[in-house]
Amino acid sequence: MVAATETKQYFKNIPQVRYEGVESDNPFAFRWYDENKVVAGKTLKEHFKFACAYWHSFNAAGTDPFGGPTHIFPWDASGDPLERAYAKADAAFEFITKMSLPYYCFHDVDVVDYTDDINDNDKRLQAVTDYLKQKQAETGVKLLWGTANLFSHKRYMNGASTNPDFHVLSHGAAQVKAALDATIALGGEAYVFWGGREGYMTLLNTDMRREKEHFARFLHTAKDYARKQGFKGTFFIEPKPAEPSKHQYDYDVETVVGFLRQYDLLGDFKINIEVNHATLAGHTFQHELQAAADNGVLGSVDANRGDYQNGWDTDQFPNNLNELTEAMLVFLEAGGLQGGGVNFDAKIRRNSTDVEDLFFAHIGGMDTFARALIAADKILQHSGYKKFRQERYASFDSGKGKEFEGGKLSLEDLRQYAIEQGEPEIKSGRQEWLENIINWYI
Amino acid sequence: MVAATETKQYFKNIPQVRYEGVESDNPFAFRWYDENKVVAGKTLKEHFKFACAYWHSFNAAGTDPFGGPTHIFPWDASGDPLERAYAKADAAFEFITKMSLPYYCFHDVDVVDYTDDINDNDKRLQAVTDYLKQKQAETGVKLLWGTANLFSHKRYMNGASTNPDFHVLSHGAAQVKAALDATIALGGEAYVFWGGREGYMTLLNTDMRREKEHFARFLHTAKDYARKQGFKGTFFIEPKPAEPSKHQYDYDVETVVGFLRQYDLLGDFKINIEVNHATLAGHTFQHELQAAADNGVLGSVDANRGDYQNGWDTDQFPNNLNELTEAMLVFLEAGGLQGGGVNFDAKIRRNSTDVEDLFFAHIGGMDTFARALIAADKILQHSGYKKFRQERYASFDSGKGKEFEGGKLSLEDLRQYAIEQGEPEIKSGRQEWLENIINWYI
Amino acid sequence: MVAATETKQYFKNIPQVRYEGVESDNPFAFRWYDENKVVAGKTLKEHFKFACAYWHSFNAAGTDPFGGPTHIFPWDASGDPLERAYAKADAAFEFITKMSLPYYCFHDVDVVDYTDDINDNDKRLQAVTDYLKQKQAETGVKLLWGTANLFSHKRYMNGASTNPDFHVLSHGAAQVKAALDATIALGGEAYVFWGGREGYMTLLNTDMRREKEHFARFLHTAKDYARKQGFKGTFFIEPKPAEPSKHQYDYDVETVVGFLRQYDLLGDFKINIEVNHATLAGHTFQHELQAAADNGVLGSVDANRGDYQNGWDTDQFPNNLNELTEAMLVFLEAGGLQGGGVNFDAKIRRNSTDVEDLFFAHIGGMDTFARALIAADKILQHSGYKKFRQERYASFDSGKGKEFEGGKLSLEDLRQYAIEQGEPEIKSGRQEWLENIINWYI
Amino acid sequence: MVAATETKQYFKNIPQVRYEGVESDNPFAFRWYDENKVVAGKTLKEHFKFACAYWHSFNAAGTDPFGGPTHIFPWDASGDPLERAYAKADAAFEFITKMSLPYYCFHDVDVVDYTDDINDNDKRLQAVTDYLKQKQAETGVKLLWGTANLFSHKRYMNGASTNPDFHVLSHGAAQVKAALDATIALGGEAYVFWGGREGYMTLLNTDMRREKEHFARFLHTAKDYARKQGFKGTFFIEPKPAEPSKHQYDYDVETVVGFLRQYDLLGDFKINIEVNHATLAGHTFQHELQAAADNGVLGSVDANRGDYQNGWDTDQFPNNLNELTEAMLVFLEAGGLQGGGVNFDAKIRRNSTDVEDLFFAHIGGMDTFARALIAADKILQHSGYKKFRQERYASFDSGKGKEFEGGKLSLEDLRQYAIEQGEPEIKSGRQEWLENIINWYI
Repeated sequence: MVAATETKQYFKNIPQVRYEGVESDNPFAFRWYDENKVVAGKTLKEHFKFACAYWHSFNAAGTDPFGGPTHIFPWDASGDPLERAYAKADAAFEFITKMSLPYYCFHDVDVVDYTDDINDNDKRLQAVTDYLKQKQAETGVKLLWGTANLFSHKRYMNGASTNPDFHVLSHGAAQVKAALDATIALGGEAYVFWGGREGYMTLLNTDMRREKEHFARFLHTAKDYARKQGFKGTFFIEPKPAEPSKHQYDYDVETVVGFLRQYDLLGDFKINIEVNHATLAGHTFQHELQAAADNGVLGSVDANRGDYQNGWDTDQFPNNLNELTEAMLVFLEAGGLQGGGVNFDAKIRRNSTDVEDLFFAHIGGMDTFARALIAADKILQHSGYKKFRQERYASFDSGKGKEFEGGKLSLEDLRQYAIEQGEPEIKSGRQEWLENIINWYI
Repeated sequence: MVAATETKQYFKNIPQVRYEGVESDNPFAFRWYDENKVVAGKTLKEHFKFACAYWHSFNAAGTDPFGGPTHIFPWDASGDPLERAYAKADAAFEFITKMSLPYYCFHDVDVVDYTDDINDNDKRLQAVTDYLKQKQAETGVKLLWGTANLFSHKRYMNGASTNPDFHVLSHGAAQVKAALDATIALGGEAYVFWGGREGYMTLLNTDMRREKEHFARFLHTAKDYARKQGFKGTFFIEPKPAEPSKHQYDYDVETVVGFLRQYDLLGDFKINIEVNHATLAGHTFQHELQAAADNGVLGSVDANRGDYQNGWDTDQFPNNLNELTEAMLVFLEAGGLQGGGVNFDAKIRRNSTDVEDLFFAHIGGMDTFARALIAADKILQHSGYKKFRQERYASFDSGKGKEFEGGKLSLEDLRQYAIEQGEPEIKSGRQEWLENIINWYI
Repeated sequence: MVAATETKQYFKNIPQVRYEGVESDNPFAFRWYDENKVVAGKTLKEHFKFACAYWHSFNAAGTDPFGGPTHIFPWDASGDPLERAYAKADAAFEFITKMSLPYYCFHDVDVVDYTDDINDNDKRLQAVTDYLKQKQAETGVKLLWGTANLFSHKRYMNGASTNPDFHVLSHGAAQVKAALDATIALGGEAYVFWGGREGYMTLLNTDMRREKEHFARFLHTAKDYARKQGFKGTFFIEPKPAEPSKHQYDYDVETVVGFLRQYDLLGDFKINIEVNHATLAGHTFQHELQAAADNGVLGSVDANRGDYQNGWDTDQFPNNLNELTEAMLVFLEAGGLQGGGVNFDAKIRRNSTDVEDLFFAHIGGMDTFARALIAADKILQHSGYKKFRQERYASFDSGKGKEFEGGKLSLEDLRQYAIEQGEPEIKSGRQEWLENIINWYI
Repeated sequence: MVAATETKQYFKNIPQVRYEGVESDNPFAFRWYDENKVVAGKTLKEHFKFACAYWHSFNAAGTDPFGGPTHIFPWDASGDPLERAYAKADAAFEFITKMSLPYYCFHDVDVVDYTDDINDNDKRLQAVTDYLKQKQAETGVKLLWGTANLFSHKRYMNGASTNPDFHVLSHGAAQVKAALDATIALGGEAYVFWGGREGYMTLLNTDMRREKEHFARFLHTAKDYARKQGFKGTFFIEPKPAEPSKHQYDYDVETVVGFLRQYDLLGDFKINIEVNHATLAGHTFQHELQAAADNGVLGSVDANRGDYQNGWDTDQFPNNLNELTEAMLVFLEAGGLQGGGVNFDAKIRRNSTDVEDLFFAHIGGMDTFARALIAADKILQHSGYKKFRQERYASFDSGKGKEFEGGKLSLEDLRQYAIEQGEPEIKSGRQEWLENIINWYI
């Protein structure tokens, strides 16, 4: 067993991270993230609801497809699964509180190791849930969302709720039930479905339609159970186009919205948008935010970034000022997130092996979001950005344009209007000027 | 004016292209496409309804963003727009009949040059429509679909039906009306919408939701007009993720299906899938076919291929046996196309400048489709392919699995079943074996 | 003929663009680009040698593969090629001086239209050269580099210096001779080769080795001619992986360096790095800068940016602060550019149709470069960035590591050292901390 | 310890795989790979020298970044590392012989587990080497190449020979020495360097030039040692653009050739081209083969394929007839491989969990190569393919074109020739006809 002093104060040499302003030369300070600063009527803390992702920070250990662990965690030395779980939870909450993160998120198997015995697993999870509940009470940290890992175990290699074998699906259901119970017990504000194996490796052996129908049925079943248990929170689907599957059914926001609408799941389900998943699907982060907002399903964000030269999920911490400022324009205009927050689904690099690195990464991420939101708010308040866009559509606000919107014009009417008005004037989209505005306010 | 002999017999040195079988050494013969061969109950001619794309074959001229025309067409020499149009039509029908293509497709501006005067344009199009009607009657060639080009003119630089300026939208409507009239007059079996500019160059100046609502309204308006004129054919939306727009609203099949469902357009509208658009959207061609088939909207195909090392629409002629055979499996199992056919939306390379090249390209494309369909039919008839996939889902055909599909099991029921059955057996997806089967039958 | 007032003062309503500082609210002012500001021992003007690209700003006209011109230039109205050329030059120099750009760059066919007659073309180019010489003298604007367009004419569809037909190659040589003469006459500081068609459309018809040997021979021949005429400037190769070719021989910096070394062209030839070409080749801009600097061939920069969701050369104006700051770190540490400058090989969007847009675009680009350079200089002067990197390699500065560098250790020696020293300590790469530093100084 | 019968006859239910011809309905038979068939003067066995990759087939176990093992190997049950190694070797040779594979390839840590003690590791490797030697003698199977894994251990997280810490580099050297000794002892025909971590995660902490110099020095040191031990085989560098590194120095063939030339390593070192690495670098497989052949370094092939919709190394078994036939055209015209063979660096899918699947995968790969080679040979012998390409360059075979190749013409001479000859005739590249030829012979 690991000595208590070792694991209970894993981060003991790191100072509490606080806001010090842009003039600070302290690498452990926030320069832009002042949690109490009010922007557009809410504090930064309220806007973002920043969360720590248990899996990347306390489980992942720096492995990749070509190499084993480089982040050596003291709690992994314990032979007993619950001891290991408690020691890990101690370190996690030490980190979360030192980082001033108000929330955390987890998969079932992040917080305690599972075996192949469902009853055993449920008992383990309940024990750790009790422990986490106590940690939450001690620290004031809250659970943003919980989820079940239905992709790592070999039984899920062909999918969980979309597995061709009903038997496997039933195991996924057992896991989801326990994860929902834990989420509810911990006061989790939401519950997430990410279907990494809910897709296919080859179409040649796949009945895509039937698999998607099973997926919809599974979501209804899980939702009904949770509602029956009194869960009031939101369910999130997290889109990703592929990886580990060759194709994943929850490809992107539009695909998920179409699915939710088709299977009558809109309302209970909203979307958790991950930046790197957006870019892997061929979209910008801001596009996915806008697509979700336009459909009323902008629920939550998994904050990270990809690498535009690498074609897989690199899950790096956010740092790009331009991209995030454009995203925060959408975020603010949409009125923020519905039911979720900003979870750092990001990992430090395999070769970022110092204890400090996890702090630097989160500080950079939180500061970049804060700086981007502040800039975006100024752009909306003080620049010509918003007005320009609005005026572009003015021809639909009255007259024939408005009649068209109202469905009152036939194709012949439209043609007649075109003839009467003659050739339209060319109107610049002013893209370069709009892009300059972004940089004036960063 | 161009001498009649020059344009009326542009392809005079090329022999009629006929089926000669795999032993032929004639570069102007089909080796696999025997139009009368019956496969799965239909002739190859009926399966495919191959069509010639007017724009690539008779307008494009080999230009690209870095260079001007290399394909020098004699009809372009004429100063009179209608003379030019008639001469081009003569050449087109000469080609189409020599190639044994039963269909063709066109945009309004492919068949005659447009000015900025709507009434003039309508008259021109009517004149050419009369001419084409006569050519159809003479040759037996039919119109698969017509469409309007709402992306080349500068007025459409910010979109047509999604333009922020209602005035521009009305011009798009005028063009669509005339194109619908022409399509109906020519007995066109379908009408296509490809929205190359229906998207955005930057989100910064775009109200995406409003633009998409206008798009839906526009489609309804056009459809209502056509139905009123007695048009019985299908409308097709052709997805593409981007280019020329940075983002196009009709991104891929799932996005379009979601849009059609949301705006109550399913039924009248189906999908025209272009191979190169599928791959640019991060999908295989067969995936897009399957997604459309699963939603009952597999309408038509724009046959071509992209280049996996080039990130733009290269529109090359199909030649890949493995990819097309996998696609033809989906095609056959879906029962073929609903309302459409296989249009060669493909162009010979800029440096394929001989008159023969256009024939070689179409021969290769038609032969590859034919060979792939014949192989796919054999796979479905004679191999273990179909049965293997069916049996993978057998656990849902009876017992608890069937009850789950019927919505009769709760999450607790599923958990109970999982516990009773214990850990599931691992079942191979047999991907490599399935891939081998493909090659056995090509 | 266009009225003089119209073309000679095309930009008459635009004010002179000057530095006003970050507090300015003038969209026609620089906020960061103060040309006289000294950074790392040089003024910003000297560091960058900003240049206007004739082709994008005065020829391109907003066309793309799916649409015709949207930027309507008054000089295009003139029927006489030289009148057109002079009117365009007037507008160009009006823009360049209003923008405070010290340099410009051009292809032969940008400044005057060419026919198929070599002698005629040479006379035309000489006439325009005289005119440009006079404009340079009047304004103090200088020529950064000239080049010949060997990719737009249909004769170059299979390449120019790599064309399978020697006859075509000789035409390329004629054009290069005239462009070199013009560059020399105008005091051009460098000459560029971009080989958009020097590659292949399909390997099936290509003898790649022979084509590359011809390319090398052609470069030697051109270089020998220019040196004989007294040209002292640098020759630049501009890498690009593809487009319009399926594959271009000058794929990226490493490929070009290997080619220059193999064919004994290093010394006379250095590299002109275009940002968007770097990213299309799967590299970051800073990677290509570093690769060139490491080989002593960092010659010049074509400043622009691509779109990470679009797979073609979008040539947008630079605006990303993080990417450019990382690039400027390399730029400063390499000691700047050898023989070249920063040319805005960038175009305003097709739908940026106002006269102002060209100004906004250049202002944004120049400001972003300036801001990035200033930040990079501070990072190098004040942060721990440089020292950290240096210390990572300290084990090679003395002892056994130094002996290894000097080639004094055998494999057995190395093994012996490994055994003696035991398992090495893990040392963090500190990536997230380094990324935070970037943002602290932007 | 695992029972002998279990591991020694892991594949006991699988029949010996033999050639049965295209009419066979046996899934365990070759349809095209007749090892004794003579094509272009060599048997298929001699052409390909097919090899089994130890790591994918006997170590990888189906893991991916999102899940643990699904392929459960009985030998992994043994607690003793050497027992495990011997049991694995038994299974490996059983597979290799049943598959009629004449060769195999391995990394040091594939054949036996390593600890952190160099002397211990060397002893283990020697013991297994003895065992493998005996297996080779019993079966006639030969070692194509050996290599050392310098990327999985945490000490290599910042690179091995390019690690900033000399101490780590020395450990890499110790491993390479032992792997070279083993390769020599086993009569290995070649030795491979794949530098998965020889690159960078971020340029911000990297001295790229110094790292590459260390890399070159390391290769010289290793080569000198091996030559001193009497090794006569070829050294191969295996290019890959990225993964696990963000950027890998051995990006592609051109980059590696440039590096080998710069550091005087050409001659001893040739290139091992992996299909999936080629496509990840933005090239076709045939392009990389041609680039290597043109530089005289076409050494060996790692046969597999990528997935064009997935941006990482999927290492699937080859099955595409068109792509391989085009590749085999280059292969045959280059005169085959210099010093290497065709190693199946490919893995069955995570969910291909039956013992049979490994056989199906290799059968498919070998058959596709065989079929492609036979087709390519016919194309070269019987079609107009070769002659067409040759004649395209005829203008350089005599007259002025030949003088140009010989360096005898100045730029003025070339211009004079262009004027005398006038505008060149346009000559079609005939791409579509060439593509048709491929399909006629498949």
